[in-house]
Amino acid sequence: MNETKGNQSELALIRYIRNRFPKRRREILKGIGDDALVFRDGIIISTDSFFEGVHFDMTYFSPYVLGYHCMAASLSDLAAMAASPICALVSLNLTQNVSKKEVGELYSGFEKITKKYKMDIAGGDIVASPAFGMTITVIGHAKKPLMRSGARPGQALYVTNFLGLAEIGRRALRDKLPQKEYPDAIEKHLCPEPRIFEAQSLSRYSTACIDTSDGLSTDAFHLAEESRVKIVINEEHIPIHPEVGKLCSIEKIDPLEFILSAGEDFELLFTAWRIPKIPKVKIFKIGTVVKGRGLYLSKRGGIKRIQPSGYEHLR
Amino acid sequence: MNETKGNQSELALIRYIRNRFPKRRREILKGIGDDALVFRDGIIISTDSFFEGVHFDMTYFSPYVLGYHCMAASLSDLAAMAASPICALVSLNLTQNVSKKEVGELYSGFEKITKKYKMDIAGGDIVASPAFGMTITVIGHAKKPLMRSGARPGQALYVTNFLGLAEIGRRALRDKLPQKEYPDAIEKHLCPEPRIFEAQSLSRYSTACIDTSDGLSTDAFHLAEESRVKIVINEEHIPIHPEVGKLCSIEKIDPLEFILSAGEDFELLFTAWRIPKIPKVKIFKIGTVVKGRGLYLSKRGGIKRIQPSGYEHLR
Repeated sequence: MNETKGNQSELALIRYIRNRFPKRRREILKGIGDDALVFRDGIIISTDSFFEGVHFDMTYFSPYVLGYHCMAASLSDLAAMAASPICALVSLNLTQNVSKKEVGELYSGFEKITKKYKMDIAGGDIVASPAFGMTITVIGHAKKPLMRSGARPGQALYVTNFLGLAEIGRRALRDKLPQKEYPDAIEKHLCPEPRIFEAQSLSRYSTACIDTSDGLSTDAFHLAEESRVKIVINEEHIPIHPEVGKLCSIEKIDPLEFILSAGEDFELLFTAWRIPKIPKVKIFKIGTVVKGRGLYLSKRGGIKRIQPSGYEHLR
Repeated sequence: MNETKGNQSELALIRYIRNRFPKRRREILKGIGDDALVFRDGIIISTDSFFEGVHFDMTYFSPYVLGYHCMAASLSDLAAMAASPICALVSLNLTQNVSKKEVGELYSGFEKITKKYKMDIAGGDIVASPAFGMTITVIGHAKKPLMRSGARPGQALYVTNFLGLAEIGRRALRDKLPQKEYPDAIEKHLCPEPRIFEAQSLSRYSTACIDTSDGLSTDAFHLAEESRVKIVINEEHIPIHPEVGKLCSIEKIDPLEFILSAGEDFELLFTAWRIPKIPKVKIFKIGTVVKGRGLYLSKRGGIKRIQPSGYEHLR
């Protein structure tokens, strides 16, 4: 994956495409600009691409774990809409050096997670490619889809679990750090869990949701922009996982700056009128929604406007 | 694209995946094994990947023409099911050397064809990739989806228009042959037309359909296999377009062998009880459906079993 802090080329490109292709079909409730495409009848569809050397590193991913990882990341877009998965289409891009055995293991990884969510692998495509990768299209259904655009002034901003762990895990694996010192982070990078069940419980409480795939600042910025509100993140309320604290301390990075830009945690960032009570799920209140526009950070009484600094998938 | 005549690795891999992932969800009418995923409510979804150097050659594709080409090829899977397109999701895989201007031109190509079919571009993904390419997911609706499995003994096998033209066009462009000698073929390779409207007219007559993307023998084999029937292609009835005849003659290839394996024409291969009458559409009767199994070729009274020899997307 590419870290391009401050580079807004992907956001600009999506904005450009969105302006050129306004929603016209009446079957569609929401197209470009949310985690997934939403049909009026509640069908939700999302598509994500993954490439070796960009999104994953086969020096420490096994094909099995890769299958789990990519399907989990794809399903996270359904979780963000509070959708229940139905099936996935996998378009597999194979280089010559991928063996049939490895493809079988990849599908075992898919199988592990698709069984958990009682969903089908219902088709796709297999092509030769100069780069090993895949594009997964996931299809689900939501009775009440949670959009990015539903945040309202007076609500608070919440997040499930800790942020930044996946990127710590990626760095620990990449830099061959002692694995036993970063167990949660490594697990989080390799096998993230889409918050499918949590999102369904949340949908009683929440009116706007996004998954944390691009870093807290980028994801919160999307919520603010799509809902046309001002979101203030309270720096003191962002929880720091010990493994995030440890590596940031060693690498002399500000853990807050790190969390604002570290992506791929696939947690849920959402707004609600009151804190949801969901058994066994950690939920942290990390900010507020107020009238206005844009994303702000409050810190020891001060407040400053910030720009999305998250992961960008383009340079 | 890869020509691997006789190599059945892709078919074998799809069979393997299909056996491992049987259809379980009741919302799904047909999953792996047809041109697209079919939901019981008539929603049809298909996904296709395209990569530079494998599926297209940027020495003669402009970004605009490429946009048209890839969307047309994707829509052909909806045509094969007699579905009407609703929208597409585009997952764009960009290398560093693709400019914003080129992305704009690519989307102009998408725009040209999506306007024709009154469909939306309703989302997708943009990622950095080691290889330039894209995966397009198309979504449509069919009142009466035409499956591969509906062929019945006693029917005839038909095809719209000529076969083999696209591959002739690809070779003409690749080998820098005089373009004015292969105008239809070159147009067919660059800007194929998905038979969306034709398929909708056909659905009154036909009970089984596939688009000719992998070569006549592979596509007819799929119809025979999915319908559990025997299909006999009558060699003398296969129409040979003058441009196919010309290049095959120059290259000393048997035009029939060529057509059996040349893909990407995106015509409709279908079975029906009688020849459909559709204004302005050329339809050729090229074979019959009988009791039994497998694919056969009849020639001057003789008949022989043949194997799929079409384009494979894997080596």
